[in-house]
Amino acid sequence: MTVHMDAAGNLRGRHGEAARTFVMASHLDTVPNAGAYDGILGVVMAIEVAEAMRDVVLPFSIEVIGFSEEEGVRFGVPFIGSRAVVGTCDETLLSTQDANGITVHEAIAAYGLHCGALPEAVLQDAFAYLEFHIEQGPVLEAEGRALGVVEAIAGQSRYTVTFTGKANHAGTTPMHLRRDAMSAAAEWIVAVETFAQKTEGLVATVGSVSTIPGAGNVIAGEVRATLDVRSAEVAIRREAEAVLLAKAEECGLRRGVHVEANLRMEQAAVAMDASLTTLLAEAVGDKARSLVSGAGHDAMIVAPHIPSAMLFLRSPGGLSHHPDESVLMDDVQAGLDAGVRFVELLAIKETDA
Amino acid sequence: MTVHMDAAGNLRGRHGEAARTFVMASHLDTVPNAGAYDGILGVVMAIEVAEAMRDVVLPFSIEVIGFSEEEGVRFGVPFIGSRAVVGTCDETLLSTQDANGITVHEAIAAYGLHCGALPEAVLQDAFAYLEFHIEQGPVLEAEGRALGVVEAIAGQSRYTVTFTGKANHAGTTPMHLRRDAMSAAAEWIVAVETFAQKTEGLVATVGSVSTIPGAGNVIAGEVRATLDVRSAEVAIRREAEAVLLAKAEECGLRRGVHVEANLRMEQAAVAMDASLTTLLAEAVGDKARSLVSGAGHDAMIVAPHIPSAMLFLRSPGGLSHHPDESVLMDDVQAGLDAGVRFVELLAIKETDA
Repeated sequence: MTVHMDAAGNLRGRHGEAARTFVMASHLDTVPNAGAYDGILGVVMAIEVAEAMRDVVLPFSIEVIGFSEEEGVRFGVPFIGSRAVVGTCDETLLSTQDANGITVHEAIAAYGLHCGALPEAVLQDAFAYLEFHIEQGPVLEAEGRALGVVEAIAGQSRYTVTFTGKANHAGTTPMHLRRDAMSAAAEWIVAVETFAQKTEGLVATVGSVSTIPGAGNVIAGEVRATLDVRSAEVAIRREAEAVLLAKAEECGLRRGVHVEANLRMEQAAVAMDASLTTLLAEAVGDKARSLVSGAGHDAMIVAPHIPSAMLFLRSPGGLSHHPDESVLMDDVQAGLDAGVRFVELLAIKETDA
Repeated sequence: MTVHMDAAGNLRGRHGEAARTFVMASHLDTVPNAGAYDGILGVVMAIEVAEAMRDVVLPFSIEVIGFSEEEGVRFGVPFIGSRAVVGTCDETLLSTQDANGITVHEAIAAYGLHCGALPEAVLQDAFAYLEFHIEQGPVLEAEGRALGVVEAIAGQSRYTVTFTGKANHAGTTPMHLRRDAMSAAAEWIVAVETFAQKTEGLVATVGSVSTIPGAGNVIAGEVRATLDVRSAEVAIRREAEAVLLAKAEECGLRRGVHVEANLRMEQAAVAMDASLTTLLAEAVGDKARSLVSGAGHDAMIVAPHIPSAMLFLRSPGGLSHHPDESVLMDDVQAGLDAGVRFVELLAIKETDA
């Protein structure tokens, strides 16, 4: 491959003379105190698949990209590498500062690259994108499967929900005269779990709860809770939000507790390309299990611009972003076999077209 | 009255020549950022009642005590003043240090008093104790009553309950593969509320909840919650503890969440003297409402040594330990009238005996 680094710091290897390009990519970075496979495994597997194709005549070039930045650790904004290759590194992104006040623009310059060259980083004539990634969840392992074909990356909404009752003495306030914010929040949290359990294709989580004043002998006057709702189906997610926020009101009302919900983040679901996903499932064969990614990935950024597909590898223990993160050798081999077969099927399809 | 300060810093005024002594007392201190009535109102009312009796010949002396320390703010140990008058200021108490490492013993010496004189502070030949205090709760107000006769000071138990599940990604972990500590805790908190609501004479509170790691997009791996259970009846409190801790286990078990409960504090209920309480109810008349104090008071320390009674005055808004803490003038007058009548009834009873 011919290798270069683009203006966003992405490492790019290109094989073939055709303008029409098949892209395989994942990210080089991960989070602090993480494991050895998140991101980088997808880059190494892409190189392996390209290597397997070195002597095969293909009707397209292969480009492998190791994205420079996906996690958003330094600037709080993720996907800088993949945004560069689809041309969405805008001024807002470039002027974002890290904890020391250094902008993305300045960091790129300090590394010896030039933001002026960012337009040249944008992929031209790319017709298909494939990303290998560890699942980072327990689904494949629970079902005893090596590989998963991603149909969509879930959309998500995050809220903070504040329950305001009245702080009062835990000893002198009888039960019927309480406005206990924690009891209201607790009933709601159970309702969130119950609703998500019975709704296919939905996950909903209350991950953070804080009580104010937060003393054992004082009834909580205020509770601040988070709500994280995800689904590949926008209708399911919207319905869940409406039901769960109404439920919060209801749990509050019964106790004289005021409820206020604030939307903190909303991200639309991104479907993978149907035709490429079918091809990928065919390449995987009877080991295929289609699933929705609950976490974001570079493929989510690329998909609106280039038809994309994504292959998950089983995560032992569902672990990721942890030093014990791992992957099974046999699963990697199965993933590589599927990747090679996918490229072969893609070549047949392109030749037929 | 003849006034002096004892070795524990209690202000004591004595009227009469008889050795047999009727004591009226409350505390001089309160908490930081508090109101104007907690404790001190009881001392002022005691002085007023003594004043009303100045020319009445009684078969006993009256002693009014303003306890030096009830809240435990400085040393973390409450009731230093009242413990001194019943002779329970032991070495453990005297060697307790404040935040600067100064012991109770040293603080007393620095104030110019002598711990060696503590035995002289112990009440001799006291046959009855009466304390006036604001209710610090909403019961009397809710029922439109000025005064309440305390039958008992509730016993209490405090636990920390830790729910340990597994922290995991809120997006990639499907509902059926979660071990969500917050969902388990939430179901339990609702059960605590429900059980206390349906159990006469019980209050139970989960006032503090913290989630670990406490991020909106991470399923809580651990939740630490407090449990505060109070009742005047030890059987009711014990039964509640057993039921609620078993319930916590059950809520955890269903979700693969381990539950551990640790007892942090246990305080037995203290009944007021039945005969004095009947006399006090008679003195109050048809405005009387007997109730249990959910908070601790000096009377709780005194009662095991000297027959004790306690009169509550309505707390507007149920507020206490707050700058807006207040009391109604008419209620204070009603309380004084009841106090004077109580002393008169006590004198009749003593004379008859």
